[in-house]
Amino acid sequence: MTGPFDHPFLGGLFGDRDAAQIWNPERQITHMLAFEAAYTRALGRVGKLDAVTAEKTAQQIETSEPDMFALNSGTASDGVVVPALVAQLKGAIGGDPASIHEGTTSQDVIDTALALTLRDFNDLLGVKLEELCGAFDRLEVQFGTRTIIGRTRMQAAIPITLAGRLSTWAYPVERHRQRLARLRPAVERLQLGSAAGDRAALAPHADEIARSMADQLGLQNPELVWHAIRDDLADYANLLSLMTGSLGKFGQDICLMAQQGIDEVTLAGGGSSSAMPHKQNPILAELLVTLARFNATQVAGMHHALVHEQERSGSAWALEWMILPQMAQATARSLAAATEICGKITSIGTA
Amino acid sequence: MTGPFDHPFLGGLFGDRDAAQIWNPERQITHMLAFEAAYTRALGRVGKLDAVTAEKTAQQIETSEPDMFALNSGTASDGVVVPALVAQLKGAIGGDPASIHEGTTSQDVIDTALALTLRDFNDLLGVKLEELCGAFDRLEVQFGTRTIIGRTRMQAAIPITLAGRLSTWAYPVERHRQRLARLRPAVERLQLGSAAGDRAALAPHADEIARSMADQLGLQNPELVWHAIRDDLADYANLLSLMTGSLGKFGQDICLMAQQGIDEVTLAGGGSSSAMPHKQNPILAELLVTLARFNATQVAGMHHALVHEQERSGSAWALEWMILPQMAQATARSLAAATEICGKITSIGTA
Amino acid sequence: MTGPFDHPFLGGLFGDRDAAQIWNPERQITHMLAFEAAYTRALGRVGKLDAVTAEKTAQQIETSEPDMFALNSGTASDGVVVPALVAQLKGAIGGDPASIHEGTTSQDVIDTALALTLRDFNDLLGVKLEELCGAFDRLEVQFGTRTIIGRTRMQAAIPITLAGRLSTWAYPVERHRQRLARLRPAVERLQLGSAAGDRAALAPHADEIARSMADQLGLQNPELVWHAIRDDLADYANLLSLMTGSLGKFGQDICLMAQQGIDEVTLAGGGSSSAMPHKQNPILAELLVTLARFNATQVAGMHHALVHEQERSGSAWALEWMILPQMAQATARSLAAATEICGKITSIGTA
Amino acid sequence: MTGPFDHPFLGGLFGDRDAAQIWNPERQITHMLAFEAAYTRALGRVGKLDAVTAEKTAQQIETSEPDMFALNSGTASDGVVVPALVAQLKGAIGGDPASIHEGTTSQDVIDTALALTLRDFNDLLGVKLEELCGAFDRLEVQFGTRTIIGRTRMQAAIPITLAGRLSTWAYPVERHRQRLARLRPAVERLQLGSAAGDRAALAPHADEIARSMADQLGLQNPELVWHAIRDDLADYANLLSLMTGSLGKFGQDICLMAQQGIDEVTLAGGGSSSAMPHKQNPILAELLVTLARFNATQVAGMHHALVHEQERSGSAWALEWMILPQMAQATARSLAAATEICGKITSIGTA
Repeated sequence: MTGPFDHPFLGGLFGDRDAAQIWNPERQITHMLAFEAAYTRALGRVGKLDAVTAEKTAQQIETSEPDMFALNSGTASDGVVVPALVAQLKGAIGGDPASIHEGTTSQDVIDTALALTLRDFNDLLGVKLEELCGAFDRLEVQFGTRTIIGRTRMQAAIPITLAGRLSTWAYPVERHRQRLARLRPAVERLQLGSAAGDRAALAPHADEIARSMADQLGLQNPELVWHAIRDDLADYANLLSLMTGSLGKFGQDICLMAQQGIDEVTLAGGGSSSAMPHKQNPILAELLVTLARFNATQVAGMHHALVHEQERSGSAWALEWMILPQMAQATARSLAAATEICGKITSIGTA
Repeated sequence: MTGPFDHPFLGGLFGDRDAAQIWNPERQITHMLAFEAAYTRALGRVGKLDAVTAEKTAQQIETSEPDMFALNSGTASDGVVVPALVAQLKGAIGGDPASIHEGTTSQDVIDTALALTLRDFNDLLGVKLEELCGAFDRLEVQFGTRTIIGRTRMQAAIPITLAGRLSTWAYPVERHRQRLARLRPAVERLQLGSAAGDRAALAPHADEIARSMADQLGLQNPELVWHAIRDDLADYANLLSLMTGSLGKFGQDICLMAQQGIDEVTLAGGGSSSAMPHKQNPILAELLVTLARFNATQVAGMHHALVHEQERSGSAWALEWMILPQMAQATARSLAAATEICGKITSIGTA
Repeated sequence: MTGPFDHPFLGGLFGDRDAAQIWNPERQITHMLAFEAAYTRALGRVGKLDAVTAEKTAQQIETSEPDMFALNSGTASDGVVVPALVAQLKGAIGGDPASIHEGTTSQDVIDTALALTLRDFNDLLGVKLEELCGAFDRLEVQFGTRTIIGRTRMQAAIPITLAGRLSTWAYPVERHRQRLARLRPAVERLQLGSAAGDRAALAPHADEIARSMADQLGLQNPELVWHAIRDDLADYANLLSLMTGSLGKFGQDICLMAQQGIDEVTLAGGGSSSAMPHKQNPILAELLVTLARFNATQVAGMHHALVHEQERSGSAWALEWMILPQMAQATARSLAAATEICGKITSIGTA
Repeated sequence: MTGPFDHPFLGGLFGDRDAAQIWNPERQITHMLAFEAAYTRALGRVGKLDAVTAEKTAQQIETSEPDMFALNSGTASDGVVVPALVAQLKGAIGGDPASIHEGTTSQDVIDTALALTLRDFNDLLGVKLEELCGAFDRLEVQFGTRTIIGRTRMQAAIPITLAGRLSTWAYPVERHRQRLARLRPAVERLQLGSAAGDRAALAPHADEIARSMADQLGLQNPELVWHAIRDDLADYANLLSLMTGSLGKFGQDICLMAQQGIDEVTLAGGGSSSAMPHKQNPILAELLVTLARFNATQVAGMHHALVHEQERSGSAWALEWMILPQMAQATARSLAAATEICGKITSIGTA
């Protein structure tokens, strides 16, 4: 267990519980089952399967409980979890093999499951962004008219109102809300392409199946097959890192303001030191800087994954799996920590 | 001369002439003079200067010819070019010192000059994106109904139409045009903040001055003071890298299609080899991959620059100067090279 | 659980069991306890504690079983696990508070525990590197005299022996072994600096304590206090990424050689596809490319962490925690996968 | 001209004159001519050419003055400068075509020319590292016994001697000198592989030719053909970034110490501000942070270039060209700026 977000003790610092639940592997499997059930139901709707059988099979899919150990082995040999998952489903449910998965491909399942995860996660981001806006608003109301020394190039310049500094923290957050609203449809999107992206195996019902599935799953834009078009995911990673980057500036400013000799902010309940119990360390403010630099580093990887060759790049695709979930977790934590810092500020600026 | 874009011989590979003119340092200085002239005129309009003097001074600013050698020395000692530039202007023009620059700060000049550069560059991007869309359209018309073997995980899968592959190249480019249209107002934007971002030195005419300057300069959104809010620039860098990343996929695909034994594309006039004159190397397609990885690497730096402390971070700001112009040049070259490749394709797919 | 290495199903692809055990959080805690026990014993040896008490306390430390839940909470509030761990130890063991931890600081514990982890991990790397060298040697013996078409710029050039291609894969691995041997002393190193790095709290026995601890723990170079000198860790991260990068080239070459139409390698037991059961995907070769790009992305973060301000940067330090363990895991997996690929090659080149 | 290092005005901040001369494109061409001349002479020595003709031709090569404009066009069409350069040489010199270049390839010329550049640049690094060590030594002698407040997590901890802080700046620089000495042979190395890396075209004299060329050029290790083995270059890039990273820590510390309210250092001659002439900005210290983050960003690109497919990757190779020269320039500037800062410190710490 070396991931920082769900680490038994580092998780206390880096992890966000809500985000962890959304990115939970069991929940990812649930989303994959939702894809398979929606597909089977769609086959019923277009008449490729008997509707009653389709509904019954879909329900069996939704309530199946995959053997995670076997999924692990399957991923090891196939590079994707789907062949093992489908084999389990077919083994457990029986009936016509054509009633499950056939006509779709691994990428359809995994990318659509990701879209469902992102939908849930975007809801969470929306809540956290709103909370943070509220927290900044409260600081503005309480302390906005106070004064601090504006500092440029780390040197004292001239006095400014605290509101001036605050606006450099709060303004981007408002903008991130708008960016998120705009990007949601681009990532909460069905992927259905069949073996090589042309939905050939679904003819002549391809578009009808896609629309039905998007309807069932609450996803958008069923027209686009995006298996080898990854720009929206990189764009989304960019947004996550814009969020943590803005908050990294906030965290860095708080660290600088909390220095002895500067003393522009007082925080309740900082971290304690094992060697110097009297110290109050601005743990969460430092964390914002860490998370900003983490995501700034990672976003490059998502851009490298744009070089996604041909109809499916196993290597570029798997790079997304390694990076995007971590960027999301880091972002959720950053938003929560920023709100928490605002709540700990007992004084800021000079009255 | 180690920059690849204007390098005496590597420039032939990496450089784009149109982009080079836009990012030319002399032109950057011209934009700075435009800022100063607009500011002086605005002082005339709000009555802080006599209108006739203001106009005359503004014209003198616009037509002044700064001593670049002295600007270089000034940048060495001040970290920004503006103090030296302003000193030259005041020395050359004389008159009331308050008629030039006073009330603004270095960052106002440099960030606004950048906005003017980006406006010109965005015009160029618009043209290049349109050309590339046209080139992809022509491929589609000419070859779209042909067949290639769809390949997933670098293995032959099933036959698809060339149109299927083409759409993975062309679709993102169309989307980049929309993204660019949306981002333009966010980066083609006046920066006017005075010493520490609150426009205090411009009171009570601050907003009027800002509006006048934005009008004169053809920039937008004069309300926002963005000296320490850099998210739109990182967002813009992201867009540049999305463009090169999409085209990196195109380039990688062309390289793979051009392999002997695969033979899915024929290109006229590839690069020659000093050892094997018979070889036709897919130079431009490889270049697209290089530029994609270059920008994917750089975008991280622009996100690190988001941690921009206090009212002005000399270190984060200068990091933008090192990176953003190069990303822009790489993007212009990538778009041009992609269009050029399309024009060299004499055959693609199987009739 | 969003980390790819210990993920319930993705772990099958990305995880290495041996590496996971070494980086296990419980084992990290065991290393921290080893630090504390060695320190207490050292206090006994220099006469700061009664030797019998010291030994008894040290044994109690070593056999204590920390409450991980409380460690998680402690990390959340303190930013480091150590204050909570020390509080637990003192609570459980009792006696003179000065017999546990006092005189050291959190960073001493965590950095030394990391050094112990790296020592174990370097042993593992040594084994894996040797296995891989053996695997490449066997390929050379079996197939080295065969012929392939040398390819430059993705174009067929002239025939070369397979040995020529093989040497570009194997040579760097041999060099990595030398690099590892050289770097081991630089990272398997005691950290003991007290509150601010000068060992002031340990005077006049500081060096004696350090030597004793290094002896007990099997670590090197007890003279250097490296709390704020992080170059060796970044250098180590570089080595990890050199390893994965070299193997990324191997993986990319195998993927290219396995293409239909090129057919230069035959692999037993590739991954299966959910849509096309006949396909044999070169999963592990693609994985090598993924891991190379993952580490190439991450190494930047370790270099950003070099900007480690003053006597301890909470933000730069925590960035190391997020990145280095993952780079290590990726490297272990890459080495194992490369060896596995060699074992699966049933034919390569033309006899 | 968008490269920051040779930019007409930004160059004053980012550029190092000595480094610029070493990386000058004309000098790169001179190194390529040196390669060609050494090769021709080596052909004479092994009896493939008449020795007198070989010497005469070699001298003609060395004194030829390539038409840079034509080299630019050639690079545009061939992706490398060498075919155009060789064509010019053959055109100008005439005689037996086999007396110039034949048997080698573009990569031999360019990689060997890079090795010659690195040899010169490493000499420069050696000088600059020594100067910086001297500067730190002088600070130590003058101020080492003074006191500052040790700061951990940006909070005042306990007083330490200035020597303690200084050692965290100076120690890594000493280590970088050792690293550089160790890496020099690995990058100052002949590349001679012929068309596909096996020196086939040079048989049976290949090794003799390589030894002769290495002798003539003052390069090492002529046995290794490293055309597709790029780890030493990435390792070298790592060293450059370790240097700038260590100095980034120094710069960050100086910025923090120079804050009003902290006042731990006094610098002569900081940068001036266009809005606040009284301010003294720690320009060079900020620059160290910028250059650290620049190189930390770039090093990732050099690691991505390790995925260098087959016998020559046009795309990965060109990525090195875009990045490594800039990293080198940034490093030279960083070393010079750090030395300059030391010289400007008029007081540091508390007597």
